Amino acid sequence: MNRVLSNMKFSRIMNRSRTLYTLIFSMLLYSTIIFSQDYTNYVNPFIGTSNYGATNPGAIVPRGMVSVSPFNVAGKQNLPLEKDSRWLSNPYVKENTFLTGFSHVNLSGVGCPDLGVILTMPITGKLETDFNKYGSSYKNEVAKPGFYSVELNKYKVKVATTATTRVGISKYNFPKGESHILLNLGLGLTNEEGASVKIVSPNEIEGYRNVGAFCYYKPNETYPVYFVARFSKPASSFGVWKKTKKQQGVEAQWMGYNGKKRFYKNYFKEVVGDSIGTYFSYNFEKPASVEVKIGVSYVSIENARENLEKETDGLNFNSVKIKAQQEWNNLLSRIAVEGGTEDDKTIFYTALYHTLIHPNTLNDVNGEYPKMGTRETLKTTGTRFTVFSFWDTYRNLHQLMSLVYPEQQSNMVKSMLAIYKESGWLPKWELNATETTTMVGDPAGIVIADTYLRGIQDFDVELAYEAMLKSATQIENNPLRPGIKDYLEKGYLNTGTTKSGSVSTTQEYNIADFAISQLAKALRKKTDYQKFKKRSVSYRNFLDKKIKLLRPRNADGSWVSPFDPERGANFQKNLGFIEGNSWQYTFMVSHDIKGLIKMMGGKNQFINQLEKVFKLNQFDMANEPDIGYPFLFNYVKGEEWRSQNKVRSLVKEYFQNKSGGLPGNDDTGTMSAWLLYAMMGIYPISPAEPIYTITTPMFDKITIKLNPKYYKKEKLIITRKGSKEANIHSIQVNGKTVNNYFISHEKLVNASNIKIQTKQ
Amino acid sequence: MNRVLSNMKFSRIMNRSRTLYTLIFSMLLYSTIIFSQDYTNYVNPFIGTSNYGATNPGAIVPRGMVSVSPFNVAGKQNLPLEKDSRWLSNPYVKENTFLTGFSHVNLSGVGCPDLGVILTMPITGKLETDFNKYGSSYKNEVAKPGFYSVELNKYKVKVATTATTRVGISKYNFPKGESHILLNLGLGLTNEEGASVKIVSPNEIEGYRNVGAFCYYKPNETYPVYFVARFSKPASSFGVWKKTKKQQGVEAQWMGYNGKKRFYKNYFKEVVGDSIGTYFSYNFEKPASVEVKIGVSYVSIENARENLEKETDGLNFNSVKIKAQQEWNNLLSRIAVEGGTEDDKTIFYTALYHTLIHPNTLNDVNGEYPKMGTRETLKTTGTRFTVFSFWDTYRNLHQLMSLVYPEQQSNMVKSMLAIYKESGWLPKWELNATETTTMVGDPAGIVIADTYLRGIQDFDVELAYEAMLKSATQIENNPLRPGIKDYLEKGYLNTGTTKSGSVSTTQEYNIADFAISQLAKALRKKTDYQKFKKRSVSYRNFLDKKIKLLRPRNADGSWVSPFDPERGANFQKNLGFIEGNSWQYTFMVSHDIKGLIKMMGGKNQFINQLEKVFKLNQFDMANEPDIGYPFLFNYVKGEEWRSQNKVRSLVKEYFQNKSGGLPGNDDTGTMSAWLLYAMMGIYPISPAEPIYTITTPMFDKITIKLNPKYYKKEKLIITRKGSKEANIHSIQVNGKTVNNYFISHEKLVNASNIKIQTKQ
Repeated sequence: MNRVLSNMKFSRIMNRSRTLYTLIFSMLLYSTIIFSQDYTNYVNPFIGTSNYGATNPGAIVPRGMVSVSPFNVAGKQNLPLEKDSRWLSNPYVKENTFLTGFSHVNLSGVGCPDLGVILTMPITGKLETDFNKYGSSYKNEVAKPGFYSVELNKYKVKVATTATTRVGISKYNFPKGESHILLNLGLGLTNEEGASVKIVSPNEIEGYRNVGAFCYYKPNETYPVYFVARFSKPASSFGVWKKTKKQQGVEAQWMGYNGKKRFYKNYFKEVVGDSIGTYFSYNFEKPASVEVKIGVSYVSIENARENLEKETDGLNFNSVKIKAQQEWNNLLSRIAVEGGTEDDKTIFYTALYHTLIHPNTLNDVNGEYPKMGTRETLKTTGTRFTVFSFWDTYRNLHQLMSLVYPEQQSNMVKSMLAIYKESGWLPKWELNATETTTMVGDPAGIVIADTYLRGIQDFDVELAYEAMLKSATQIENNPLRPGIKDYLEKGYLNTGTTKSGSVSTTQEYNIADFAISQLAKALRKKTDYQKFKKRSVSYRNFLDKKIKLLRPRNADGSWVSPFDPERGANFQKNLGFIEGNSWQYTFMVSHDIKGLIKMMGGKNQFINQLEKVFKLNQFDMANEPDIGYPFLFNYVKGEEWRSQNKVRSLVKEYFQNKSGGLPGNDDTGTMSAWLLYAMMGIYPISPAEPIYTITTPMFDKITIKLNPKYYKKEKLIITRKGSKEANIHSIQVNGKTVNNYFISHEKLVNASNIKIQTKQ
Repeated sequence: MNRVLSNMKFSRIMNRSRTLYTLIFSMLLYSTIIFSQDYTNYVNPFIGTSNYGATNPGAIVPRGMVSVSPFNVAGKQNLPLEKDSRWLSNPYVKENTFLTGFSHVNLSGVGCPDLGVILTMPITGKLETDFNKYGSSYKNEVAKPGFYSVELNKYKVKVATTATTRVGISKYNFPKGESHILLNLGLGLTNEEGASVKIVSPNEIEGYRNVGAFCYYKPNETYPVYFVARFSKPASSFGVWKKTKKQQGVEAQWMGYNGKKRFYKNYFKEVVGDSIGTYFSYNFEKPASVEVKIGVSYVSIENARENLEKETDGLNFNSVKIKAQQEWNNLLSRIAVEGGTEDDKTIFYTALYHTLIHPNTLNDVNGEYPKMGTRETLKTTGTRFTVFSFWDTYRNLHQLMSLVYPEQQSNMVKSMLAIYKESGWLPKWELNATETTTMVGDPAGIVIADTYLRGIQDFDVELAYEAMLKSATQIENNPLRPGIKDYLEKGYLNTGTTKSGSVSTTQEYNIADFAISQLAKALRKKTDYQKFKKRSVSYRNFLDKKIKLLRPRNADGSWVSPFDPERGANFQKNLGFIEGNSWQYTFMVSHDIKGLIKMMGGKNQFINQLEKVFKLNQFDMANEPDIGYPFLFNYVKGEEWRSQNKVRSLVKEYFQNKSGGLPGNDDTGTMSAWLLYAMMGIYPISPAEPIYTITTPMFDKITIKLNPKYYKKEKLIITRKGSKEANIHSIQVNGKTVNNYFISHEKLVNASNIKIQTKQ
């Protein structure tokens, strides 16, 4: 469809234009749109919208601040997947049927409910402002990168949404008659409340909505998201509604309207409250469409307006939509896969799409963004990224960015350093300039070391090193490494240090210390290298050799007893482990697999014990601690087939072209990054160690375009000969057979050609 | 005290200055400060702060948008006069003891709780943000026009407040140690909630607070009052607090802080909510003072900031205080009284002070103000006045303004016409650009006609006439005259038209129609004159000649039975009357006293019946319908002594130099205007009829300065010879004895001299 349209356009352009300039322009258009593949056709944004994948099908551009997502998690009509009846972290669930609007800021693939606010909703007939009543079933959903459309059954209204980085654009096709566009600032996915709204003119609304306190850790880390909404057609009448809190006391009895909803018709001043919204009303003599542009900012209303104007002035819905699609295709085409089924390609490009949503843009078009914590306005010349879910993403997502989008990864590291300068600490789980301190460990330094060691070095590495050392050594008031005193004195955290994850946290600190040692080595800081290398294996204190598993210790050093290594799976509370049990953590020491093998009594014991994780059904594909496990068999020569089999079967079992086609929370792209690497046959098995371990590629040919600013070669081609269901027979790098299943990042990016021959 | 100080200043100036300019300046200073009396010494702002007078002792300049009033009506410590435990309409009650701050926008002498927000409070020691805990007892209160000071016992903090038109200035003298200045946006006299606040810097806060829905009539007539607060010393730390609503639902259980107060330390973005505030913290090494300036606007934060800067930049507390005092003295000195006790002078000048508070300024320094209802920003070149409580003030306050401050009255009429142009209707009870529609009748036109007929004519009288005709004739959707259909068809409202005040409302419409007839006459619109004159006496339909009282009629024209003419006093619900009973309304027909006398069967019957009101204890000094009664005896020759006696004893009984020294609500100066006229011995007995009726003046000499822009003579002097306790023997106007107790406005203002001789 797109191609035909483009061909027609091209013909027209050719017929009309006569100047050289136009000819060149046309040829460029021709080459990018016609000849190059449109990879957006392989993206299915519904993947991950069931089974707690927590993605959404909303329209968004790569790393956009704004997305326009259908919102169908409110109202008892959506039970059991109703937002307040359980811990539900996405604005949209595929199974649900009751849509109450389109939210303009959304998180993708996270585990806690936040954002999901600035909800618009087109309705017809009598004005209704209660979402329980104005919600509608729907049909004919279409979701593409940068585009979503749906038809609302109750109103016969067709909705299409698209976006630029900071502006959501919606097009509502109304039937003839009375219609209203609602902007509900009371409703939202976040548990936070409070908003301010002001109608500026019959074409424009401005305001802000309170969000934050992600995962309920820090009640004070809430903040406003500002917006300006512009309508392509002025409303014939408009107003604000507000439901007020029911007052108590004798005097409140005089208020006949106590606790009821109030309407402010054609009113031009701010209205604040928890449950407020605006309505813009129309009376169409024939079917008509209205386009609504909503610019967003985390700095101010003025910036939201500037974002809106700079990014969309002069553009209509269709031109924005085409631009969004082109932006996506430009990035998706960095990896070209050949072979494989349509579904294989779809899960692959959808995964790539999901890795390009977070981290996302925080700064406005003018460069302004809120300072960490205090939210003073600061300014950047580059991109200030946000939504750093490092406990997840340090394991593979940033490695993927370093390989395929190194210019983005560089900016991400720069954003991390900016956060350090602003707050005194590197981020842990940063969200819109708040440090949510979600999860454990000190992961930012791992990402920084990993990035540097992969050759992305255009950042202030000494500043980064200083920041890493600070969290690794400061004993008092260290927000990144609670329990560091015991860690430094005893080498590990015990159940006296914390009742929550003493083993897991020690392991995370070990990996962070390993990263410091690796970076120290590269920076020729030999003392630090030795010191932190030694610190990085203190997890060994937890290895109970009798059971060959990590086991928490009491404050006096004795083992915690009784001890059930299976306890802690499925988010069960567990004394020594966070979001997992001993089985799921014991092997999370990829930087010291040799040490682990030795402690377990040798290679056989190691392989047996690792196999047991799977046999006992203790492997959890849906959470991060053990996602490297399937690749660990590669560390024992002759056992690599086990990794290939495991990875192949896990991909088949958990990753599919359907709404439930992710194993669980996408974790801001971490699960998707896992899939991408698994399907390409390379996996960055050890964070802060620039290596990949190899399994069977699932495509015949994979071409990765390399950014010449960071890499010498233009591209890397991985080809597979033989069945993708078979195990590897031989690996050739630039025609030269290599005899193990590991390849360094440097060798990989300079290889041009990696050929993998399977046994069949 | 002031004189001595000024003398010293003068000497110093004389010694130092040598130039002519300085000499002239000094002499001016000398003449205004030294020779002219400081009438502010005769103002006791505590009068009316008990007994529901509803005034407050806050610092304010004449017709100021801002006042800085102590706020002591919150917290159970103030029971029984606690704001939410009863209908309490003032921020301050003299009897109370628990002060929880200083509110920056306040109404004076009204009957419903509104405004009383933007509360600051200085505290010491540990930060405490719950007013129930941080409130304090106090001592050594001083209140003067434009100045208030107090000492907070709990904190040993001395507070002084003063104001310009749009800026409140407070000075806090802190002891050494930890101190905090709180700005509580949750607390307020109004029942409305909702605010937004943003700390701009360690010196500045901006935000807005929701107020409105005065008297609970119109839930949608709420609106923001904007402010910018600046501190003379930057805070060493600062933050915002917010108490959030307790969320319901399963998910809310995860919020450990659900419904609790949160603190945002050193935070620079907007926080919205119902229960929010800011704290600015200091740690003083020695006793120190901080000055806080709060600029206010009803248009925008930007305007609040501009108001603050334009009115106070370069001025400190003392210079603002002196300026405020001068402004007051300039206006108070328009009437100079001689003779009488100190208390007489105090109740007189305090009353004059109270008539100069409302109506007050709505527009910002740049002329901008919110349009009626929709609140779009409009601009005026003059003063846009607000707080028009016309049901009260049409009876005497505007007459006083026309006489003493005609330039202000002219601007008030212009504001009324602006409101007509903005909303399509004249105001009824306008408050900050909302039409609260409080009370009954159509009083604005009465004020306009009255003003015009007194010679204040520099407004668009044709527009005014058009507006008056509109509300007098439009049958459908007439917000000013509900029930007008019956009024026009039957001549009166019946209990089928309304269960609430059919008689009272008819009487009000009658007076409004009388005003139209009088204005029509002046404008030579003869047909209208006749038509509305006829309409103005339709109250006669209610006179039950058997009982010589007004009595409501049923829809079929029959009398309402049974009928108790005493029912309805003390705000008892009553079918035919509003805030009163038949006794209190029957004589409220000053434009047709002759008609009433006739219908009652002659002068004797009239006098007997009027005396009965007092004898039966049915006269209510605290409410408007019957406040003209004491003067009505003047309509019967030979009975004038009754008026003189009544007025003299009412003044003694109800008006005193004490907090309870007003009979009840001051009604935005109406009670005070009554007192002023009563004490001067002239009363504008019939609204829209430019006459005064005469009683014994209570001062030996009263000199009223007349504005040469409106009046030919420079001043009017009323002198009394003989005891003020005695009744009048003779009245001379410019030396010529007159033989009745009425004088026209024209004669009065051109008289120069009125001499009244009493019998003793």
